[in-house]
Amino acid sequence: MQPQRILVVGCGLIGTSMARAIRDKDPDVLVDGVEVSHRHRALARETGAYRHVYASFPDDTYDLAILAVPIQTACAVLAQAAKQASIVMDVCSVKASICKLAKEQGLSLRFAPSHPMAGNSGQGPASSNESLFQGQPWILIEDWPACKTLAPWIVSFDARLEWVKTAEQHDAAMAAVSHGIHLMSITAMLAAAVEADHSHAHNWSFLTGPGFRDVTRLSQSPHDFWVPTLMENRQAVGRYLMAAKDTIMELERCLEAEDSEALGRVLSTAKTAKDEWSTPSHPPL
Amino acid sequence: MQPQRILVVGCGLIGTSMARAIRDKDPDVLVDGVEVSHRHRALARETGAYRHVYASFPDDTYDLAILAVPIQTACAVLAQAAKQASIVMDVCSVKASICKLAKEQGLSLRFAPSHPMAGNSGQGPASSNESLFQGQPWILIEDWPACKTLAPWIVSFDARLEWVKTAEQHDAAMAAVSHGIHLMSITAMLAAAVEADHSHAHNWSFLTGPGFRDVTRLSQSPHDFWVPTLMENRQAVGRYLMAAKDTIMELERCLEAEDSEALGRVLSTAKTAKDEWSTPSHPPL
Repeated sequence: MQPQRILVVGCGLIGTSMARAIRDKDPDVLVDGVEVSHRHRALARETGAYRHVYASFPDDTYDLAILAVPIQTACAVLAQAAKQASIVMDVCSVKASICKLAKEQGLSLRFAPSHPMAGNSGQGPASSNESLFQGQPWILIEDWPACKTLAPWIVSFDARLEWVKTAEQHDAAMAAVSHGIHLMSITAMLAAAVEADHSHAHNWSFLTGPGFRDVTRLSQSPHDFWVPTLMENRQAVGRYLMAAKDTIMELERCLEAEDSEALGRVLSTAKTAKDEWSTPSHPPL
Repeated sequence: MQPQRILVVGCGLIGTSMARAIRDKDPDVLVDGVEVSHRHRALARETGAYRHVYASFPDDTYDLAILAVPIQTACAVLAQAAKQASIVMDVCSVKASICKLAKEQGLSLRFAPSHPMAGNSGQGPASSNESLFQGQPWILIEDWPACKTLAPWIVSFDARLEWVKTAEQHDAAMAAVSHGIHLMSITAMLAAAVEADHSHAHNWSFLTGPGFRDVTRLSQSPHDFWVPTLMENRQAVGRYLMAAKDTIMELERCLEAEDSEALGRVLSTAKTAKDEWSTPSHPPL
């Protein structure tokens, strides 16, 4: 499928990068945008990627609507988008709730849940880039037929297509590779701060090296994106945290009991897992 | 003080790098080595940094003995080294136990607890390098007079001298910036593996990005060094783990109660701490 009339809902970094990538590949494709922010509308227009950028849904029809808005907003506008477009695709980083909603709204054949794992340090349409998706993973969910329909079109943006079986698997994978990892970075930072307080030290930044910087780096991200994302994926993230807590309690036990052998086993199990996760693998198809 | 006769106990990466740095600065200084490993003795001799490399303590006297062996070994040979050298300095990454022992052995004025935070990905004398310490932190403990005596000499290796008040403060700082951080990297990796098992996925390496790679990187280190180090610093590391567990339990509570406001507070407290720890600070003198 090569959609010729496309509506981008949410003209921020991802939405406008998509609009630009689409037009870069084929300038004859018509791309309209919907953007509630006055400022973002103006910036989106300046990119020249859109025919029109509307403040609300226009009275028109499209081959494809792309929901490039936060997950709660995507859920709220799904029905409206489905009225105006043959296929609706979202690009949110959590999938279970919107997939459930799409089924309830009878969109099993017309909804394409997707997740481009792309971004940059900027925000909004001014940071958009037509090559944002090049070489980056773009996750599609196997049990949604519209994903198969759109797959060749997504590949044409030079994204690296990755298939995950179900929305639940996607969310579990995100908890493991992203959302839970983010919380561990936060936890590592806060525990260091508590330990410094305990020693009445202001901080120990003069003693930190690359290990500390790498592990705690993500804790510096602004939390606007993270709070709704984590909340949306709270079930899988909750399981991840429980597993983390189990490991910490086992580590505490090893130290208290001075059980070097058991401590060595925990470290070597982690090393085995990391070694496995560091070699390229195929998706679990 | 400019020691003219030096005994390096343990001719591995750190010991031999020191021997080379010493000779590089002043070829007239006499440096002997003690190394139990036959192979490391041969490699250490090849560097040309030592007059002799002995298999056990020689029958000679020195201005300075440098204990560049694992902490348990350093404790075991402290008394012998003190018989043969005017000042004994160690370079171990945990300080409380050896400082306690040095006090018990009446070495309060002759023992210099120190910790060069330097290394490379290699091991043994073959990986040694006379510029290993350049620009790297070298921690000295304030309440040990021999540290003040040696400070100008250590500065001459272009190391960045950092003072910490007490051995206990040093160990607490290491729990916060290194040992605990290492365990959080391990915990993050293991929780990801548990979550993949839960979803019957082999692994999700095809979905990992820079965040995952940075946070879990340390879990790939070999554990020969880590098990004794963590065990030696179990008190401070235990406190760090307890603080980490508290944060994880608070995060679990936020997700269960769908309390976005409280979740945002945890994230923003971590961001504030990370911001503070990312700006250069003075040591807590």
